[in-house]
Amino acid sequence: MNYAQRLHAAIRAKNSPLVVGLDPRLDRVPTEIRTAARDARGDDPAWITDALTTFCTGIIDAIEPFAPAVKPNIAFFERYHLPGLVAYANTVAAARARGLLVIGDVKRSDIGSTAEAYAEGHLGDALPELTDGRLTVDAVTLNPLLGTDSIRPFLDACRTRGAGLYILVRTSNPSATELQSLDTGGRTISQRIAELVEAWGAEAGIADGYSPVGAVVGATAPAELRALRSALPHASLLVPGYGAQGGTADDVAPAFDDDGVGAVINASRSICFAFEKRPDVPWRTAVADAARAAAEELDRVRRGR
Amino acid sequence: MNYAQRLHAAIRAKNSPLVVGLDPRLDRVPTEIRTAARDARGDDPAWITDALTTFCTGIIDAIEPFAPAVKPNIAFFERYHLPGLVAYANTVAAARARGLLVIGDVKRSDIGSTAEAYAEGHLGDALPELTDGRLTVDAVTLNPLLGTDSIRPFLDACRTRGAGLYILVRTSNPSATELQSLDTGGRTISQRIAELVEAWGAEAGIADGYSPVGAVVGATAPAELRALRSALPHASLLVPGYGAQGGTADDVAPAFDDDGVGAVINASRSICFAFEKRPDVPWRTAVADAARAAAEELDRVRRGR
Repeated sequence: MNYAQRLHAAIRAKNSPLVVGLDPRLDRVPTEIRTAARDARGDDPAWITDALTTFCTGIIDAIEPFAPAVKPNIAFFERYHLPGLVAYANTVAAARARGLLVIGDVKRSDIGSTAEAYAEGHLGDALPELTDGRLTVDAVTLNPLLGTDSIRPFLDACRTRGAGLYILVRTSNPSATELQSLDTGGRTISQRIAELVEAWGAEAGIADGYSPVGAVVGATAPAELRALRSALPHASLLVPGYGAQGGTADDVAPAFDDDGVGAVINASRSICFAFEKRPDVPWRTAVADAARAAAEELDRVRRGR
Repeated sequence: MNYAQRLHAAIRAKNSPLVVGLDPRLDRVPTEIRTAARDARGDDPAWITDALTTFCTGIIDAIEPFAPAVKPNIAFFERYHLPGLVAYANTVAAARARGLLVIGDVKRSDIGSTAEAYAEGHLGDALPELTDGRLTVDAVTLNPLLGTDSIRPFLDACRTRGAGLYILVRTSNPSATELQSLDTGGRTISQRIAELVEAWGAEAGIADGYSPVGAVVGATAPAELRALRSALPHASLLVPGYGAQGGTADDVAPAFDDDGVGAVINASRSICFAFEKRPDVPWRTAVADAARAAAEELDRVRRGR
């Protein structure tokens, strides 16, 4: 099965197209976790690894019934230098151990020979003897500005290892339009990238209508989401912007195909920090409740109800 | 002094606009280093950390007289998962300890709040108590596809910490033209990005004619290099593609301003692996000789001689 097939099967099995984004911020980790890590480690920076790992693992346990995948954003781990990156590896391992698909939100991009190095780091097996501290995930997000030779090593990983890719086509941030919406002879840059995504998908191989080369298209631009969905018939979409960024369930509806698959919808802050507004319950209960509610809402949208 | 001022002073002090790219590949690390690491560590993946650290530190010692800066590409460390990233941190520390400027070739890119996390990881000080394992460098390379809000946290680091940026404007790879050369109403995407770079540079502050917001422009497209040099009057350029990628000293000449600064020229493989063609001398001698020769050639070009 290619990555899209595995993902779509998981969406159906869990009745949920929700992806939970893991963007931990140390100052918003539940106090009980921070205190325990500090008590155990003192001034050793390993307390940061512990705090982030415990928090992310707790979220994973809480949301596992309601989401086929998680999306740790490596930026929030790199922020804390090596102690943070150890937590990233721990988080990836915890999610995989629980059977979740892991989308590494790494947005990497480099020229051919260097892209190969990134592909091995995030999708490959350069160090088969390594048991701890692996970065390897099921799928990664990639920035396409450098063109086909920057993507090709990742296409190889799709074919040989069943990996998946999500190419940035239209991002959800306010400045996205500065370059992505520029007109190039009747088509925007986003539309040009969408054409490349379809070509790369054909190269990686299509099964059950979908290639393992997906696309990131934000929920904050619903009209473009609809247009790009048509322009990307073989790409499974990863849709950020739902929840804290302002996108609604109705906004993301056009992302799904007639069979109710073809997309996952990401929510990060609205789920991971749901406990901040509910001091009355254990933090993981608040996270689980938020994930359940989002999953139910998105599943109705997915099924067109 | 802003980053460009520090860099240009270092170019003058060393009579060299050479930046040595550190792109280690484990299978090309000198045999003596690999053997020693294996002997000391056995099957512990820490042997990889040791081998990469020893190799990169040896290069740094060898080239230090001939280059104002080094540019470790983090992809070649991420390839080896956490053991590789520990070597990245060690390499950055070794280069800084020897007074070299360090350009972290990370090509990061993400939306506003996430860009902030990357900026703290690579240019910031989120963990002042951390003595080992820091990723902090003097300057980073950034991918501009997501627009201004993805860059702004890094501009803050330029202002508050004297950091530098190199925005990808025209890369040196064969597929660069697919998106970067698309025409948008009389200007290519690269030219549009150049306009943004100038705007971001003004926001970060100009001193001695240069802002800390530089640009990556490849030596493999000399005509574009000339045009982009004029379009980027306040940007110090980072020019890849010289050496192993085929760019010559003449190709990079247009990168310099009339004062012989305003650019650094990167060479990676042609210097770091120079020992492969010279089994007659110690490996560090071969690396030092290659760096000296490149520095002398580029310094003549820089001075217009």
